Amino acid sequence: MSTRRGFEEMWRDLAPVGRSASSGGYFRQPWTSAEGELRSWFGEECARRGLTVETDGIGNQVAWWHPDAPTSAKGVLTGSHLDSVLDGGAYDGPLGVVSALAALDLLRERGVTPARPLGLGVFVEEEGSRFGRACLGSRLVTGATTWEQARELRDREGVALGDAVDAAGLDPSAGLLSLDRVGTFVELHVEQGRDLVDRDVAVGVASEIWPHGRWRFDFAGQANHAGTTRMEDRHDPMLTYAMTALAANKQARLAGQRATFGRVSVEPNGTNAVPSLVTAWLDARASSDDALAELVDAIGRQAEERAGRDGTALTLTAESVSGSVAFDADLAARLAGIGGWPVIPTQAGHDAGILSDAGIPTAMVFVRNPTGVSHSPDEHAETADCLAGVEALADVLAELVGPGPAGR
Amino acid sequence: MSTRRGFEEMWRDLAPVGRSASSGGYFRQPWTSAEGELRSWFGEECARRGLTVETDGIGNQVAWWHPDAPTSAKGVLTGSHLDSVLDGGAYDGPLGVVSALAALDLLRERGVTPARPLGLGVFVEEEGSRFGRACLGSRLVTGATTWEQARELRDREGVALGDAVDAAGLDPSAGLLSLDRVGTFVELHVEQGRDLVDRDVAVGVASEIWPHGRWRFDFAGQANHAGTTRMEDRHDPMLTYAMTALAANKQARLAGQRATFGRVSVEPNGTNAVPSLVTAWLDARASSDDALAELVDAIGRQAEERAGRDGTALTLTAESVSGSVAFDADLAARLAGIGGWPVIPTQAGHDAGILSDAGIPTAMVFVRNPTGVSHSPDEHAETADCLAGVEALADVLAELVGPGPAGR
Repeated sequence: MSTRRGFEEMWRDLAPVGRSASSGGYFRQPWTSAEGELRSWFGEECARRGLTVETDGIGNQVAWWHPDAPTSAKGVLTGSHLDSVLDGGAYDGPLGVVSALAALDLLRERGVTPARPLGLGVFVEEEGSRFGRACLGSRLVTGATTWEQARELRDREGVALGDAVDAAGLDPSAGLLSLDRVGTFVELHVEQGRDLVDRDVAVGVASEIWPHGRWRFDFAGQANHAGTTRMEDRHDPMLTYAMTALAANKQARLAGQRATFGRVSVEPNGTNAVPSLVTAWLDARASSDDALAELVDAIGRQAEERAGRDGTALTLTAESVSGSVAFDADLAARLAGIGGWPVIPTQAGHDAGILSDAGIPTAMVFVRNPTGVSHSPDEHAETADCLAGVEALADVLAELVGPGPAGR
Repeated sequence: MSTRRGFEEMWRDLAPVGRSASSGGYFRQPWTSAEGELRSWFGEECARRGLTVETDGIGNQVAWWHPDAPTSAKGVLTGSHLDSVLDGGAYDGPLGVVSALAALDLLRERGVTPARPLGLGVFVEEEGSRFGRACLGSRLVTGATTWEQARELRDREGVALGDAVDAAGLDPSAGLLSLDRVGTFVELHVEQGRDLVDRDVAVGVASEIWPHGRWRFDFAGQANHAGTTRMEDRHDPMLTYAMTALAANKQARLAGQRATFGRVSVEPNGTNAVPSLVTAWLDARASSDDALAELVDAIGRQAEERAGRDGTALTLTAESVSGSVAFDADLAARLAGIGGWPVIPTQAGHDAGILSDAGIPTAMVFVRNPTGVSHSPDEHAETADCLAGVEALADVLAELVGPGPAGR
C-alpha cells in the first residue's frame, strides 16, 4: 500500500512541471527552470529517504544507499533521466527515476540488507533536445565525449552549452560524477513500442539497442522572388529536401528500418521567397551497423542526385552516430529469469547504452506502453503496469545488491 | 550631375540600415527599429527639400509639393515602400522611394511648374513579412482591410499588430492617410524578372499584375518516437507536406504558373520525434483568376489524397488572395509613349495594385534587373539603370503634373 501511494504521490508532484497548457506535453529542456525544478525535487526525495544527493558540475545526480559498504564491493546504480523531448510525454525518463525511488522504499519495507551500495541516479540531456547530442550527460561521465568538445555546442538560440550550464548555477570545473563504484547499471524505462503489448505482459528486459544516429542535411539554393521567378529558373532547396524526406521514408520502409525527418529549419522562411537554405535532420536506425550505413548512404545518394537536378548543393554531416549495443546477455537472462519476463530489443537510445559501451554490465527493464506512442503528449502507461515495474525493479535490485553475485 | 550625386548619396545612406552582416541581406520588418530609422530618414530627406512629411497612425507617410494648388486639381502621388522581406535585397521598395525624391530634384532643376500637387509617399508592411498580410498599409488606407480586422493579426512571436504599432510610438487612433487628393498613383520598382533584360531596355511600364495569394496548409499527424515507431504505424505529416511541396512545383511547372512553399513551421520540431503538425504556406500566382483557382485546387486535391494515405489531416486556409489587376491601359500607353518603353506584366504584388483596385488610375515604372533575382540578398540593379529610372520617372511626373491632362 505505501509503495502504491508513494509512487502515485511522486507522479502527481511531477505532473505540472514544464507542462504545456495547450498540448499537455512536456518541455523539460536541460538547464532551463523546469529542469532545475526537477533537480531540486530529486534532491528532496532523496533527502526524505535519508540519502545525500551529489550533483556534479553539469547537473548529473546520484544518491547512495549504504555508501559505507566495503569499497571492494562495487555498487549497483539505477535511474534514468528527467529531461524531455520538445512537447514530450510524462513517462520517458521520469518513470525510471520515480520507480528507482519507489523500489528503494520497497526494498526497505522488505527488510533487504544490501551487501553493496545502491545508487539512485539522474543523467542530464538524455534526449539531446537542446544541444542536439543525445545522452550528453552519460557521454560526458563515461568520457565518450569530452567537456572540451561539448562546451561549444550551441542550442537553437545560439547559447553555448558552457554558458547554459553556467546560467543554471552549475560549475563544470567542480568535476563530473564518478562511475568508479558502479559495478552494474539498471535503467527502467517505459517501452517505446508494442512488443510487450503483443506479448501481453507488463514487464520485459532489454537485449540490445539498434544502432542509430543523427545526420544534418544542409540543402543550399538561391533565394528568389516566389512570384516572378519562372519555375525553370529556380534553385529551390525545398524541393530537394521534400524529395529526400519522401525517399528516406520509402528506403526505411522497404528495408524494415527507421528514417525520420522531424526537424527542419528554413532560411529566410518567408512565404513570398524561394528559400536560400533548408536544413533538416535525419534520425535513422537499423538492425545492424551495416544496415544503418547502407540506409543513410542510400538516402544521401538520392538527395545528391536530386540536388543535381534542382541546381542546389547538399552538405551531409553526421552529428552523432551510436553503434549497436548488446546488453550483457548473461545478466539479461539472469534478471529475466526472476519474473519470467521476455527479453526484447529496442530501437531507442538510452544512457544505459552509453554505460554498457563503457564496459559497465548494464540491463534495462521495460514497462508496457499500451499504444507504443512515445515522444508525444499521448505517451502513456497504466498505473498498474507502472507499479508492476516498481516491483520488478525491486526484485532485480534485491538480486543484484544481495549477498549473492553482483552484476556479473 | 546633381541628381546623380543625390541618388547615390541617398542610396549610400540607406545601405547599412537593417543589413545582416552574415548574408548581406536586409531585415527591415515593419515597426522594428530598422524600419523606424528608415521612416526618420524619409522625413529628413523631405525636410531637406522644404516639404513637410505627414506620418499617419500606422506609419504610412506622404509629403506634398505644391499642396496649395487649387483643391479642384487632384494630385499625383509617387513612391513605394521601405520594408523588406526577411533577408531581402536593397532595391525592392527603396528604389521607388529614393527615385521619387531624386525625380523631384530633377523636376525642380528643370524648372517644371506643377499645375497640381505632387506627393511623395511610403506605405508600411508592403511585403507582409511580419504579419503575413502583403500591402497592409495600402490596404488599410484604401479600406480594402479595416483596422478592426487587422489589429489582431499576430507576428511569429505572437505580438499583435496593434501592440507592435503602439510599441513603435504610433497611434492608430490618429487616423490614416487620406487619398482624397490622389488623382493618379505612380510606383517605380526594380523589375523582379528578366523581361527588360530580354528586351535590352532599362525601363518599362506595367500592364497588369497576375492574381496571387497565400494559403496556409496545416498538416496534422501524430507525434511519436522516431526510432521505435514502425514506419507503417506512423501518421507523419512531414510526408504529406513533402509530397505537397513537390506536387505544387510540378503543377505550376506544367501549367506555366507559379507555386512556392518558402515558409514551414514544424511541431515539435525535434530530431527524434515524428512531428505532430507541419504548417506550410503556399504562395501561388497565375495568369488569370481562373487559372489561379485551378492551380490551388489541384494542389489541395493532391494534398488531401496524400493525407488520406498518410493518416494525417489537412486544413487549408486562404490567408490573402488578390485578383488580377489590370492597370489603366490608356495611362500605361500614354506614359510608355514618352520614352518608347515596353508595356509588360508582372507576377509580383505591389501597393500600386491595391490603389488601382481602389479606383485610382495607377501606373508602374520598372527598372531593369540584370539577373531577375529578387527577395534575395543577390537582388541588384546597375546604377546607370537606376539613374535612367529617375529620368523616366521625372518625365512621367512632368507629364502628369504639368498643365496638360492629369491621370486620365
